[in-house]
Amino acid sequence: MAVDRYPSRQGQQAKIMERQDPVIHRNPEFADGPLTEQDLKGFEENGYLMFEKLFNDDEVAIMKSELRRTMDLNQERNADDVIKEPGSNEIRSVFEIHKDSGFFQALSKNHRIVKAAQQLLGSQVYITQSRINFKPGFKGKEFYWHSDFETWHIEDGMPNMRAVSCSIILTDNYEYNGPLMLIPGSQKWYVSCPGETPEDNYKSSLQKQETGVPDNESMKWLVDQANGRIDRATGPAGSVLFFECNTMHGSAGNISPYPRSNVFFVFNSIENKLTNPYSGQSPRPEFLANREDIKPITPNK
Amino acid sequence: MAVDRYPSRQGQQAKIMERQDPVIHRNPEFADGPLTEQDLKGFEENGYLMFEKLFNDDEVAIMKSELRRTMDLNQERNADDVIKEPGSNEIRSVFEIHKDSGFFQALSKNHRIVKAAQQLLGSQVYITQSRINFKPGFKGKEFYWHSDFETWHIEDGMPNMRAVSCSIILTDNYEYNGPLMLIPGSQKWYVSCPGETPEDNYKSSLQKQETGVPDNESMKWLVDQANGRIDRATGPAGSVLFFECNTMHGSAGNISPYPRSNVFFVFNSIENKLTNPYSGQSPRPEFLANREDIKPITPNK
Repeated sequence: MAVDRYPSRQGQQAKIMERQDPVIHRNPEFADGPLTEQDLKGFEENGYLMFEKLFNDDEVAIMKSELRRTMDLNQERNADDVIKEPGSNEIRSVFEIHKDSGFFQALSKNHRIVKAAQQLLGSQVYITQSRINFKPGFKGKEFYWHSDFETWHIEDGMPNMRAVSCSIILTDNYEYNGPLMLIPGSQKWYVSCPGETPEDNYKSSLQKQETGVPDNESMKWLVDQANGRIDRATGPAGSVLFFECNTMHGSAGNISPYPRSNVFFVFNSIENKLTNPYSGQSPRPEFLANREDIKPITPNK
Repeated sequence: MAVDRYPSRQGQQAKIMERQDPVIHRNPEFADGPLTEQDLKGFEENGYLMFEKLFNDDEVAIMKSELRRTMDLNQERNADDVIKEPGSNEIRSVFEIHKDSGFFQALSKNHRIVKAAQQLLGSQVYITQSRINFKPGFKGKEFYWHSDFETWHIEDGMPNMRAVSCSIILTDNYEYNGPLMLIPGSQKWYVSCPGETPEDNYKSSLQKQETGVPDNESMKWLVDQANGRIDRATGPAGSVLFFECNTMHGSAGNISPYPRSNVFFVFNSIENKLTNPYSGQSPRPEFLANREDIKPITPNK
């Protein structure tokens, strides 16, 4: 097993370490993407980038109808890759939609997002995880602060920080319907979390994360580094949020009548394929962390 | 018992009725308060009013230290009027602080807030309920939408809509630390809620309200009337939010590191004293709904 550059969940002690990888992996071969130098600098500094209305209203209308259809198709299916709201039968997420041999598979290759991911990761990319999310109005539950990389590293064996999440926002995101909150600059630090990983942790962690949760002191420290700022990914439908795999994020509940939905693709560098989980446990299922038949994406026009 | 002009919790059916009382009770005798004609018009239209920095930083510093002291004094006291966070020993509220024979009693008579309450209610006023609230960072829980009047009417026998809540904000309220959310104009309508009131409902409802909860259809309707707007009471410490007793409000959880604290007084018109609860049940305890020894407040200079 490779050296663990980002240990976590190895006892009770929390620890903050400096990031070992660049935030942006510049490579002239992949410099022809849609992101400007200013976009890149902003991403490097903050760990995220909101691309307003990357998709237009007609495209959003189609995506919403496809999302609805996929939700409906999965309503009665009790499977691990269909996640319900805690305490209700309402679907929150459907995973692995980039393998649907249909609309979402095509969308996952859309050149607007793939070229941006290549530009940020400096290589060809593939999808390590995908899902659609539907956060209902009135009863959408909070999702506590976390770094995705912490989980992907420990539970999936992602070796380095060289992945980017791409969230296509299908409903207007307001301050009051539980938008994603991000801590600017937090991607520069790695919070090693206390605790240990239980077996089959994913079965409960997708509803409510109990391990890999940063401690309060580390969270205060990260927010202090950001001069107290906590940003919110608000914006009109059709906007796309790119955020770095180690950016600390979370969301409050949603008691407004407005549901929130989005399509979520995680692009990983083809040079950063998953190895064995650093927890020493068995890998999580394929729908959460793709390992089989990995090929670089050829962007669609 | 008087005619019930605002029935609720009488079965399964939700119903929206027009408000039977004026929002502002204009009375030349009490027109010399701090609120301008524009303030009054805004309150009449929206159901709330934010008075920015009505108290200065020095005053806020004293209030915070008195709040801390009162919290500490009550930490080990297991009493009905000390409310803990669900699932934790952290204090969320201490009630009846206007009878502390000290700092908060004096504050409850402060002319800046009492004169505003008199101006809005068009009469002398008294305090029907008071408390300090402390919403901790990281784990502050949501409070679902509700009209205070619905509870005060059904459980406390408040006959008419002629009361105003006054929240003195002691910590900066941001978009991201669970600020109070309000639906503009909602005070003009009364949402009669489905369900019935259990005995001693207050013992659980102060942590999580299960009855007197508006249904989703009514909530959507109220937000539609407001053209989709949901307002947030954000602002610097020292600001004061006045909100009408029937304004629909709630708050999401707070996962930010920033706690929120405030001092909360409910002023009721001396002409609107509590009668028997319209639920037909016993009155709630004195600390939630003052009935004894009611006298109009003489404002302090």
